[in-house]
Amino acid sequence: MKFINKYKEHIIINPLMRGGIVPEDVQAQLCQEGWLGVGYSLCHDCLEGRSSLVSKPPVKNFLGNVAEFFGGDEAEHTFGCRGAQFAVMKTVGDYCKEEDLEPVIVVDPNSHYSTNIAAEMAGLRVVEPPHTGYPEYKVTAEAFEDKIEEVGRPALVAVTHADPYFGNIAPVEEIGKICEERDIPYMVNAAYTAGVAPVNLKKMKAQFLTVSAHKSMSSLAPLGYVITTYEWSKKIFATSKSKAEWTGRIFGKKLPNLFGCSIGGVPVISSMLSFDYVKERVKHWDEELSKINSFVDRLEEIGDGDIMLLGERPKRHHLLHFETPVFWDISQKHKRRGFFLAEHMIKRKIVGLHKGLSKHIKLSVYGLTQEEIERVLEAFREAVKLREKLN
Amino acid sequence: MKFINKYKEHIIINPLMRGGIVPEDVQAQLCQEGWLGVGYSLCHDCLEGRSSLVSKPPVKNFLGNVAEFFGGDEAEHTFGCRGAQFAVMKTVGDYCKEEDLEPVIVVDPNSHYSTNIAAEMAGLRVVEPPHTGYPEYKVTAEAFEDKIEEVGRPALVAVTHADPYFGNIAPVEEIGKICEERDIPYMVNAAYTAGVAPVNLKKMKAQFLTVSAHKSMSSLAPLGYVITTYEWSKKIFATSKSKAEWTGRIFGKKLPNLFGCSIGGVPVISSMLSFDYVKERVKHWDEELSKINSFVDRLEEIGDGDIMLLGERPKRHHLLHFETPVFWDISQKHKRRGFFLAEHMIKRKIVGLHKGLSKHIKLSVYGLTQEEIERVLEAFREAVKLREKLN
Repeated sequence: MKFINKYKEHIIINPLMRGGIVPEDVQAQLCQEGWLGVGYSLCHDCLEGRSSLVSKPPVKNFLGNVAEFFGGDEAEHTFGCRGAQFAVMKTVGDYCKEEDLEPVIVVDPNSHYSTNIAAEMAGLRVVEPPHTGYPEYKVTAEAFEDKIEEVGRPALVAVTHADPYFGNIAPVEEIGKICEERDIPYMVNAAYTAGVAPVNLKKMKAQFLTVSAHKSMSSLAPLGYVITTYEWSKKIFATSKSKAEWTGRIFGKKLPNLFGCSIGGVPVISSMLSFDYVKERVKHWDEELSKINSFVDRLEEIGDGDIMLLGERPKRHHLLHFETPVFWDISQKHKRRGFFLAEHMIKRKIVGLHKGLSKHIKLSVYGLTQEEIERVLEAFREAVKLREKLN
Repeated sequence: MKFINKYKEHIIINPLMRGGIVPEDVQAQLCQEGWLGVGYSLCHDCLEGRSSLVSKPPVKNFLGNVAEFFGGDEAEHTFGCRGAQFAVMKTVGDYCKEEDLEPVIVVDPNSHYSTNIAAEMAGLRVVEPPHTGYPEYKVTAEAFEDKIEEVGRPALVAVTHADPYFGNIAPVEEIGKICEERDIPYMVNAAYTAGVAPVNLKKMKAQFLTVSAHKSMSSLAPLGYVITTYEWSKKIFATSKSKAEWTGRIFGKKLPNLFGCSIGGVPVISSMLSFDYVKERVKHWDEELSKINSFVDRLEEIGDGDIMLLGERPKRHHLLHFETPVFWDISQKHKRRGFFLAEHMIKRKIVGLHKGLSKHIKLSVYGLTQEEIERVLEAFREAVKLREKLN
């Protein structure tokens, strides 16, 4: 099976991907150090049968550093942030069964689908507070408080720190306070923030933080982390209790909420190699935000009233969602219909707009150089000009 | 965080790893084509929100080829073989709840821990037929039949094709016949065979085949496949049924048993690039087996009665488990105790014996050149000589 990477030299503006760009020197190390030579390349010195306990390379220490960096006590690596969320939901679902609680959880209405799927996997019913609707779609602490009051005692409150639709930052600290007062377990899904922006579990008063290394920590996929407190680590990272009937085998080091062992493959290696870079870039988040807000202004200017940011303003995150009636107009007359815009960008070696969509676009310029941002803006400028040509 | 790959130039004899060695030209493509540039490098042309439906690169076709190659109708990629087994167990567990069946499954006594952990995750109780004990530890179809009769109607029978303790090949076709007669769902865990030896779901009369790409298909970790029949694909690959309460969002393309989408990262790319190589090498399995059996004879000869193969003989798999009283003797007098053997090998640039163990060893020479096999034998010869030196 032969295929090439068509987008090798492209500027990537897909907001899912910008925080997951792997630094070139990390790529070089992966290639030159032979880390791609064998599937299990992290496992040569595994003594205890769990990748998170490996000390050569220092996975165990690294996970301690990850926990500390995000303001938690304990961390484990997972199969993506969805694996992290599943571990949380499974823990909560099992707790509901033990305590005979109703398995209802409150989740923000802008959650990533993986939150809802993890809840479905764990048999938890999701209820949602409303957002503020067009054009901001904001989640408020009051709406959460009302929904929590309505439910009575939800088994979990889960909030998406920066949401995948609008890149709004949820009021995670205020919601944390509400949960703390009521002693309700609280999970923040920081898939789009942890690794690009400052994120601290304790400040949010959360018990669980779920993180995506390939979305926001410059790592290869699939990899995530679940970070928790000492108290909850005993539950979520509980070791296996099963005993095989005839052989009597037990699996005492294995963590059932994480499939026993979450496998130390090349994604973990990439994340370890990228971690210093990630820690450093988070310090420069404010600079990124001003770049991002300036980009928003300039793109709206190009649209001359027909490109409008949705979600909160100013932006506090890099995921940008615009309404783009100008591109919708063009798509009605363009022979490539809704595909024209993504294709127009790809011709200019800019990849990341969803193919087929023109009424709305989502993109990110996080981490791009000013020169690259100018190229992106110029490509949009040329796209807008198509309207005149087609009229 | 800086660390190197100490074992970059080593001969790997870890039986978990030999089938997961990534061909050099695949490694080169991963590096040169920029597939390591971003976490989600397979997702640029994702239109439907699920990596298994992506057609550029041709993931969807590839999964069809994987299903066909293993004699099934449908395949999905998973987070390792453990993810595949969890999807099966979850399907069976949910089925038990719907049909009010007792959640008991029959699992071979040489199962990999991930089978038992997946059962634990899905709330299934494991019962085991006995094996034949020392020195062969064989699983028989009769023992399975007896245990199935005893249970009455297990919700699933799960068998490890080649087991991780002794590398015995289970009588999967005979057990398949027994299950077929009783209409009991049947899963074969082919983590250690599929991709090195011929494996065919239909021939085994199985409904589920679980496969490890990083163990036996020359791929990066974590990656597995679950292969099934048309009939069961509707259950195991059922799409999400959840509907978010207030927003009314549904997630119609997502597969809850696989976390919605199992993420197309670099492990999937590596597996697609390795697939032709894997298909070709399976044709030469018989040649590998004669190399392996000849290695067994020669290593036992070196041990002169103090190195003895456990498990069935002749070998029908590459995982070798030896009792090694000679190395145990040496460990009693050696200053490095049980660590001497693995360290002795590493000094000779041979990695893969479990550090600290000397009474028993597990290894594999699958896919090694004759020259490399000679180096391994010579290293063992030198290790055996330590007995005289220490006496």
